[in-house]
Amino acid sequence: MSKDRMRYDLLMQDAFRSVVKAALVRVAKEGLPGNHHFYISFRTDADGVDISQMLRSQYPEEMTIVLQHQFWGLSIDDEGFSIGLSFNKTPQTLRIPFHALTQFHDPAVQFLLPFQPNASVPAARLADVPSIKKPPEPGARSEASDNVERLAGPGPKAVKPEKPEPPTKGDGSVVSLDQFRKK
Amino acid sequence: MSKDRMRYDLLMQDAFRSVVKAALVRVAKEGLPGNHHFYISFRTDADGVDISQMLRSQYPEEMTIVLQHQFWGLSIDDEGFSIGLSFNKTPQTLRIPFHALTQFHDPAVQFLLPFQPNASVPAARLADVPSIKKPPEPGARSEASDNVERLAGPGPKAVKPEKPEPPTKGDGSVVSLDQFRKK
Repeated sequence: MSKDRMRYDLLMQDAFRSVVKAALVRVAKEGLPGNHHFYISFRTDADGVDISQMLRSQYPEEMTIVLQHQFWGLSIDDEGFSIGLSFNKTPQTLRIPFHALTQFHDPAVQFLLPFQPNASVPAARLADVPSIKKPPEPGARSEASDNVERLAGPGPKAVKPEKPEPPTKGDGSVVSLDQFRKK
Repeated sequence: MSKDRMRYDLLMQDAFRSVVKAALVRVAKEGLPGNHHFYISFRTDADGVDISQMLRSQYPEEMTIVLQHQFWGLSIDDEGFSIGLSFNKTPQTLRIPFHALTQFHDPAVQFLLPFQPNASVPAARLADVPSIKKPPEPGARSEASDNVERLAGPGPKAVKPEKPEPPTKGDGSVVSLDQFRKK
């Protein structure tokens, strides 16, 4: 197969980000409809991420926020979004650029988009894009604060949601970018 | 599972259309890189499609154009694109809105995006989105003119490309919108 000089991997990542943006824009206007809620994971060490030093030291690589019951001041622009969330009863405002996203998950309908943050390495191939997060071990519970899901360890891929409803690869619930290609 | 009130199906369709748009914008600027070429299928009966009466009568429901060797005047805007193609040695200009797209396929890297044209029916569910085109029968060849792939019949889903390299569902080459959901 030819080398992908169109870089569909990057085009798809941009497209997925636009889905997150559209979802947030809607929620900012109308609130979360029905049972919908979002788990949004992002690299805390990515350029443009603006979070408190407390959060940064607690989650030096990646964190997952939950948009469900308590959030405020959600505002979205072309580059990212800002949101107010409460962490251990302390209100904080976070600024998260879309390029920092690692995963978007709406458990209400099991909709999940995986991201390769900062997918701009020219040599990267679609086949190299990590597609599936490692699901939490059964029964694993994180010591979660109000709106954050704690990482299990320093690795960026070991998110352990409080209510683990992780899609698994076998049941067709998560798209891998590889799925857009013939092997 | 809850009803999808976020309408991720529609958000994903918009996102896929943005991928096609970005690919066309790049090709308009730089030409087709390497071996890349596009098979673009669209509903000829969709609003905003501007094609000759000849093409319309020949392809009353759907047609597939090929962007490879001969095309000109490719221009893209937010709603769609215009392109000059030759049909039986006759130059024609086609206007195709993005909402009319049914499939985008780049055989060079087997990248394929399926669309549900005019996906705006409120009652539609992601699970209802037709995801995979029926692949051509082995050895089936269409009577193709310069830049068009003839439909096998009046049905909109029986595209028979001149060079059938159809991805099949089993090998993970084509995404179904269902793949973003847990069953």
